[in-house]
Amino acid sequence: MNPPVQSLNESKFRILSSCPISDGARASSLCLPSGEVPTPVFMPVGTQATVKGVLPRDIREVVQAPIILGNTYHLNLRPGVDVIRKAGGLSDFMKWGGPVLTDSGGFQVFSLSKLRKITDEGVRFRSHLDGREIFLGPKEAVEIQDGLRSDIAMCLDVCPAANDSREDVESAVNRTTLWAHACKEAWMNGSGPAEGRNLFGIVQGGRFKDLRRQSAEQLVELNFPGYAVGGVSVGESEEEMLEQVGWITEILPKDKPRYVMGVGTPTQLLKMVGLGADMFDCVMPSRAARHGMAYTANGTLNLRNEKFKEDFSSLDENTDSFASQEFSKSYLRHLIQTKESLAGTILTIHNLRFFVSLMEQARLHILKGDFETWSSSWIRNYESGA
Amino acid sequence: MNPPVQSLNESKFRILSSCPISDGARASSLCLPSGEVPTPVFMPVGTQATVKGVLPRDIREVVQAPIILGNTYHLNLRPGVDVIRKAGGLSDFMKWGGPVLTDSGGFQVFSLSKLRKITDEGVRFRSHLDGREIFLGPKEAVEIQDGLRSDIAMCLDVCPAANDSREDVESAVNRTTLWAHACKEAWMNGSGPAEGRNLFGIVQGGRFKDLRRQSAEQLVELNFPGYAVGGVSVGESEEEMLEQVGWITEILPKDKPRYVMGVGTPTQLLKMVGLGADMFDCVMPSRAARHGMAYTANGTLNLRNEKFKEDFSSLDENTDSFASQEFSKSYLRHLIQTKESLAGTILTIHNLRFFVSLMEQARLHILKGDFETWSSSWIRNYESGA
Repeated sequence: MNPPVQSLNESKFRILSSCPISDGARASSLCLPSGEVPTPVFMPVGTQATVKGVLPRDIREVVQAPIILGNTYHLNLRPGVDVIRKAGGLSDFMKWGGPVLTDSGGFQVFSLSKLRKITDEGVRFRSHLDGREIFLGPKEAVEIQDGLRSDIAMCLDVCPAANDSREDVESAVNRTTLWAHACKEAWMNGSGPAEGRNLFGIVQGGRFKDLRRQSAEQLVELNFPGYAVGGVSVGESEEEMLEQVGWITEILPKDKPRYVMGVGTPTQLLKMVGLGADMFDCVMPSRAARHGMAYTANGTLNLRNEKFKEDFSSLDENTDSFASQEFSKSYLRHLIQTKESLAGTILTIHNLRFFVSLMEQARLHILKGDFETWSSSWIRNYESGA
Repeated sequence: MNPPVQSLNESKFRILSSCPISDGARASSLCLPSGEVPTPVFMPVGTQATVKGVLPRDIREVVQAPIILGNTYHLNLRPGVDVIRKAGGLSDFMKWGGPVLTDSGGFQVFSLSKLRKITDEGVRFRSHLDGREIFLGPKEAVEIQDGLRSDIAMCLDVCPAANDSREDVESAVNRTTLWAHACKEAWMNGSGPAEGRNLFGIVQGGRFKDLRRQSAEQLVELNFPGYAVGGVSVGESEEEMLEQVGWITEILPKDKPRYVMGVGTPTQLLKMVGLGADMFDCVMPSRAARHGMAYTANGTLNLRNEKFKEDFSSLDENTDSFASQEFSKSYLRHLIQTKESLAGTILTIHNLRFFVSLMEQARLHILKGDFETWSSSWIRNYESGA
């Protein structure tokens, strides 16, 4: 069933420092074909080949994101992988020009599509757009991502809900392992390995420590150049989530990048960095921006609030972007009131810079050796100001 | 009824060249408190203190617009003139930093509001947003624009429809003249004159040459530092519109800027430049952008079209902006298909740069002395490619 496969690329992941106190947080550098990614890193989400409302050059030059994420499920529906392949891959198609990580599409199949049927071969579902029937198996998921020319592609996995039964979670782990083998085999037949692109495995297992361990160990046997923690932030408490991340980072090899998928708040990110996680993505900063929310070191601001009507102070003078420093709270409230899309654009640039910059600061403090102290103090400040 | 008023600022308008053949087109330079405006010039419309979807710095650096327009009617409703006055004026409030021209609000009162009642004192109407009753007279229109700190404010005028009776148009002209006197008086009492800001008069008179002449002559007596042609593009044919502009530019003083309000297509702009018009504004390039249309020297492109699905050529390599040159037609079609707001942003930047740049080219050819030849050839090319 699982034929022996050639080995994947060696991970070009260089650990620069680990925190002397917790032996958790680490600063590193991940070399990808489209560029180098210093970690810990927050990856803005560019679902449909665009970080909503923001020009790619502002993601590069203002947000200063070293890598962004694309969603295979959405891109496969529109414009379709053929168009993006012909354009030279996702990064070229959207003129981002830097590294991209793509998810496998599995998460969206489970959360967006209708009438899905899962077997060991893959999942058959109907597009949420037009009801068209589509099949996505491990081979298809990997081939699509090869067509997108992702610097980091993700294995297709099965992501159970937080309260699924042990039986269901165990079945998800087994199928995720089965698919990881198939993904690796398909990946080795594509152009990814020759071009230095990477395929990461995804650890499942939900709230069951032994299943998390089983999943991680089975994937580590396949020697992926990086591993993700999947199935978190799916309904469990923050405490449970951090516990699960902690279990997994203890098991995963220290010399490979660890990516926690789809999280989280600024304080959660810092706590997970402390647990040895390296990479994160989340729609929260951009989605919150489109709803008029801004992140600051003292908590979030709701810019719809009447109290900002004549507040001509900068959005957030402590975040180093023109979007944060140039525009007043009063002006942003006006744009929100009048439903002008520029509000979302300015706040998205600010929020993403806030998240990217938070990881830059974390990295500096890891290298300096005072991450734990700085992080605790940062979290205290954020929570007291909220 | 019309008390004698002090004189307005001298217009800081320097004619650099007039076309030797037609004695129509002229290149000039308009010095305003917030900056110098080379003319002929196209002014992007920033209705609600934002050029929809575009960051002010992209309007400055990419579109390279020397001046933008704000809408008094909208800004008076939201956020209200008090907020903008306290922010230091419209240019500061929106962090544009360059010159702004504001309309008087009259046009929107007539086109958007309900239950309006016009008398010699002004117009009473209900806000299109919440039905609130508002009064706008010449004094109010000018005081609001003084609060917006507009580099160029416009007199309140009465704008009849293209097919209104001669009697109605004559009444509109008379009231426009009456209001011009009141506007000038109110303006002289504000901070505009001391700060070198300008108040322009608006010529009405519709399709009646004698009424256009009467209106122009009555305004010229008031010695405004600039004049606008109002009541065009309100339902008449292009031929009629150009005829009316031609009548008026012949009457207006040669040493003052001439602004044709709310127009037009690229070819109309060139034809009006040929008739001696200097300034234009129009929502068309930005509105068309939000509907997936791009202007090029060979006509317009509808980027929704299936034929662009795999067209990886640049949007328009002949327009000098990154928005025009960096993104492919295929990518833009994808953004439009997926209803991503970035489509509107990229196309707005491109279209506005196209219009602003067209006026820059016109200016160069006027200075070079071959405007008529160049303009005819440009129009032929544009129309044949459409």
